[in-house]
Amino acid sequence: MTPQAATPAYRRLSVEERRSQLLDAALTLFAHRAPEEVSLDDVAEAAGVSRPLVYRYFPGGKQQLYEAALRSAAEELEHCFDEPREGPLLPRLARALDRYLAFVDQHDAGFSALLQGGSVVETSRTTAIVDGVRRAAAQHILSHLGVAAPGPRLRMTVRMWITAVEAASLIWLDEDKQPPLEELRDWLVDQFVAVLSVTARRDPQTAALVDALAADG
Amino acid sequence: MTPQAATPAYRRLSVEERRSQLLDAALTLFAHRAPEEVSLDDVAEAAGVSRPLVYRYFPGGKQQLYEAALRSAAEELEHCFDEPREGPLLPRLARALDRYLAFVDQHDAGFSALLQGGSVVETSRTTAIVDGVRRAAAQHILSHLGVAAPGPRLRMTVRMWITAVEAASLIWLDEDKQPPLEELRDWLVDQFVAVLSVTARRDPQTAALVDALAADG
Repeated sequence: MTPQAATPAYRRLSVEERRSQLLDAALTLFAHRAPEEVSLDDVAEAAGVSRPLVYRYFPGGKQQLYEAALRSAAEELEHCFDEPREGPLLPRLARALDRYLAFVDQHDAGFSALLQGGSVVETSRTTAIVDGVRRAAAQHILSHLGVAAPGPRLRMTVRMWITAVEAASLIWLDEDKQPPLEELRDWLVDQFVAVLSVTARRDPQTAALVDALAADG
Repeated sequence: MTPQAATPAYRRLSVEERRSQLLDAALTLFAHRAPEEVSLDDVAEAAGVSRPLVYRYFPGGKQQLYEAALRSAAEELEHCFDEPREGPLLPRLARALDRYLAFVDQHDAGFSALLQGGSVVETSRTTAIVDGVRRAAAQHILSHLGVAAPGPRLRMTVRMWITAVEAASLIWLDEDKQPPLEELRDWLVDQFVAVLSVTARRDPQTAALVDALAADG
């Protein structure tokens, strides 16, 4: 729980502050329990406010709160990909992965519940939020690769790798967070280079990129 | 639609025949439309029977019919992995992929709807069916690899590759089925070898396997 979430209810907060206090509390709860195991009472208690106050801010109830918390998590996740466009490419990718894996580590149960679906509050809107993060990740990578018009084979390779990273995160959570984060990160970077190299055999654009990566060191 | 599905309603079918006739009709419909766009009336019409008869067999309505159709599709999908344990390994994998990709090709819209979730009738039970197919695929691959007790790094590699194949299938459907199936299949086999080789650098079990694969050709 954030220190803010412990603020007594009688402290006057602005609408924006109150909203973000409730989202923080919800995110913390959703991060450690599956959405179906979190009630609005839990959120009210964690935020130190009354249940009616939670409803005043989120009249749509749990579904609306869940979506808002998800959107806020998605924004946080997209920030992981912010990486200055300078220096060799693979270390940039490694740093972004470090931030992403730290997010996975911190939000474990909530992250699994979110990505594995099957949640009672899952809807096409929540699926769209998750897909938006995947698309953002792909765009970030392609833009770092400096390819102006990525062809279908290169795009497919990047998207497949992103899905594999997602799968790795879920398995990693399942397997008591083994191997250690640094090993997982290096393994994923090496896989990225390996799958690009496979695509390079059948796609000149990717071949040029792999040559550039090798010279980039 | 199967020829059987066109059988007039007055022909007496056994309970088993009728059930499988209805499942065939449902599977054909779910294969080409998202589940939320298929009504029980559509299924009755495709099977040439009355709506009450569909309800007699599937009293749980669309949800039950969808799950039964899904389970039947899952069985069909698992059959794709049946491959005799003889001859070099990579051609075995290529043949299984050929069957899997033919299934994807044939069930396109239904396959996407199923895997992408977001369907109105998706529940934790349907998610469990899909996960069962993924697990079966991983077990088949590990058993073909002839590894008695696969360690976590090898298992993780196989599961990541399976997820990447799934992502590739969905992207392939999105991209008007490009590249051609044979190219996609070879690309996926090459990726399998490439990711195993990356894991081999940090896992002796996988390293021994990669050596065996190289000698296998």
